[in-house]
Amino acid sequence: MPVNLQAPDPASLHAVPGVRLGVTMAGIRKANRRDLSVIELAPGSSVAGVFTANRFCAAPVQVCREHLALGGNEIRAILVNTGNANAGTGEDGLARARQSCQALAGAMGVKPAQILPFSTGVIMETLPVDRIVAGLPAAIAALKADNWAEAAAGIMTTDTLPKAASRQVQIGGATVTLTGISKGAGMIRPNMATMLGYVATDANVAPGLLQALVKEAADASFNRITIDGDTSTNDSFVLIATHKAAHARIDSLDSAEGQVLRKALIEVSQQLAQAIVRDGEGATKFISVVVEGGKTEEECKLAAYAIAHSPLVKTAFFASDPNLGRILAAVGYAGIADLDQTLIDLHLDDVHVVTKGGRRPEYREEDGQRVMKQAEITVRVGLNRGTATTTVWTCDFSHEYVTINADYRS
Amino acid sequence: MPVNLQAPDPASLHAVPGVRLGVTMAGIRKANRRDLSVIELAPGSSVAGVFTANRFCAAPVQVCREHLALGGNEIRAILVNTGNANAGTGEDGLARARQSCQALAGAMGVKPAQILPFSTGVIMETLPVDRIVAGLPAAIAALKADNWAEAAAGIMTTDTLPKAASRQVQIGGATVTLTGISKGAGMIRPNMATMLGYVATDANVAPGLLQALVKEAADASFNRITIDGDTSTNDSFVLIATHKAAHARIDSLDSAEGQVLRKALIEVSQQLAQAIVRDGEGATKFISVVVEGGKTEEECKLAAYAIAHSPLVKTAFFASDPNLGRILAAVGYAGIADLDQTLIDLHLDDVHVVTKGGRRPEYREEDGQRVMKQAEITVRVGLNRGTATTTVWTCDFSHEYVTINADYRS
Repeated sequence: MPVNLQAPDPASLHAVPGVRLGVTMAGIRKANRRDLSVIELAPGSSVAGVFTANRFCAAPVQVCREHLALGGNEIRAILVNTGNANAGTGEDGLARARQSCQALAGAMGVKPAQILPFSTGVIMETLPVDRIVAGLPAAIAALKADNWAEAAAGIMTTDTLPKAASRQVQIGGATVTLTGISKGAGMIRPNMATMLGYVATDANVAPGLLQALVKEAADASFNRITIDGDTSTNDSFVLIATHKAAHARIDSLDSAEGQVLRKALIEVSQQLAQAIVRDGEGATKFISVVVEGGKTEEECKLAAYAIAHSPLVKTAFFASDPNLGRILAAVGYAGIADLDQTLIDLHLDDVHVVTKGGRRPEYREEDGQRVMKQAEITVRVGLNRGTATTTVWTCDFSHEYVTINADYRS
Repeated sequence: MPVNLQAPDPASLHAVPGVRLGVTMAGIRKANRRDLSVIELAPGSSVAGVFTANRFCAAPVQVCREHLALGGNEIRAILVNTGNANAGTGEDGLARARQSCQALAGAMGVKPAQILPFSTGVIMETLPVDRIVAGLPAAIAALKADNWAEAAAGIMTTDTLPKAASRQVQIGGATVTLTGISKGAGMIRPNMATMLGYVATDANVAPGLLQALVKEAADASFNRITIDGDTSTNDSFVLIATHKAAHARIDSLDSAEGQVLRKALIEVSQQLAQAIVRDGEGATKFISVVVEGGKTEEECKLAAYAIAHSPLVKTAFFASDPNLGRILAAVGYAGIADLDQTLIDLHLDDVHVVTKGGRRPEYREEDGQRVMKQAEITVRVGLNRGTATTTVWTCDFSHEYVTINADYRS
């Protein structure tokens, strides 16, 4: 039951010059399911990515890192399979990830190091690389520019809806397009693993800026969401620039043109990231957690994630129960060593609940109750010890989450 | 549905010379419920305690710390109320905690600083100190030495069973008793907060050793359990020594007599702590997480708690689903910066699942399935990079947990 999320209208997803996408059914885990996608990039495109911090990162993540270490300016295709995460698979998993790159590179007449492989699905099972290889001709035959909606569906695992976003902005007299897709509904699904995100733009941006740009966009979007606190072995976010747009090259992100691009990229990335939360496993509510007045952004994040990860806070949201002491408790154990509880403020949307660490005499439970019943809620905690702030997005924790994750893999 | 836990047989709980306990119904939150307990200590007793690390610690925790800072050798009574945590209550909450101490001190003819107050229940509501004061005469009238089972019931909130443990050991030719009680079923219940533990002994132990002893016992027991990762505002563990036993004073924990006492205290504490997990909110399984081969105990704990807190691992245990990649993923994001996944081993009881970071070819899913169906399971992770080890106890994560915590407070 996604929260204020609809499937994207295919017509709203602008093609990105220099990018074609093809999807097929390769029978990787189940028959009759779109499970293999190829994103082909024109020669001269640049690619940068950020990947999971999980030390048990999957084989394809390791291979992506190797291939991007060569510079990111020779990448010609992205290969995504669902149904199998190729994680916890040891040396054999690495060999299979490389085989899939070799197969696609052979079909395209490029080198294996020009392919980035991605896998999402069950952890600790052997990647059926033969089925991937067998499926490649159909995926390649399906390549077309106007195919983002199909690719958004092609990378889904148990997401209930495909996730995509698209913007056009004017830069230096040219229309620049940014279009992206994402997937993920828990950090790890019962069978399926992983958050994946891909955004492509035809902006003509200096390749050397791409890594900073993807990092900044991830920090403002995918790095601010949490469903259940479990960091997947396969999380990846990739930014592609085809440089096809007819404007002068952007050489600085601080230039006026750079700012337009950065802003549009962050908007697209946030929409994709928030879509994952809106489609979170069993989600019935979309929660923005704002922590302000910290000494550092780091301590604001500690408090925001403590709130966003607390099963007790999340079940209270599910129940529409203004049991708001749970939020104070989470702030208290967040790990801010010298936190002074007598400074803390708490607002629930417009309702001021706590001041100086205690319940306000004016606070009425029915006001808290009114806000808790909404589908979208902002929790705002004031630490009142500095000027730093942060925002994290999360969802509630429902019976459906347990049902989804306790289902035996089938 | 507690896991292999029964209510204690009152006859098995040995009285501790120098300690009397009295329980009454004070109507603090609900009528006809035992909710106020007094534990009276003979003059000359010593007390030490460890308290929550939560910076939003409750008013009674702050008062306990103040009173124990005076040395712990003048404490004459412990006062426990359920139904209200007196946390998130600001200056007013502190004043009310002090009022309850004053009232009991007045009735006993001692000073307020000789009382330790404890509260457990809803956070962020005003402590009805008038009801506590009104209930004290009945609690005092009920004081008797042979009353541990009654006190175990008297400190329960939504625990499904009272929790108590008792041992007798021989020290220097004398019989020494250790008896304790505990409560808690989630770190914070929907209405009720807090893990509380009290162990009393008549051992004649140098008062200066008590703080080290209670810290060591907590680290080996209450600090190794987790239900949902939420650290309460009120968690407290208190050790009382009445010094009544007829043996020579223990002046060193490293002496033979000190070792006997320490071992018995750890056993009692572990039984009380494990009882909390066995009665965990919605628990259907008791899980021991052992991490070994770490460089430091600290990194073993990081991995053990990542596993024990992962909602995905816990729902897999609930489902008896050997979806064991989730355990690897949790180890991977535990925060061990230089972890090498190619060294990792995983056992589920006697079943060797993973070696060198990958699934063993010999591993058969039906073997994992067999273990996952048990009510008690040991997860053993080998980091294979050192000699440190740790153990943490937890339970699974069921529909019942969500039901309990999503119930509107009533």
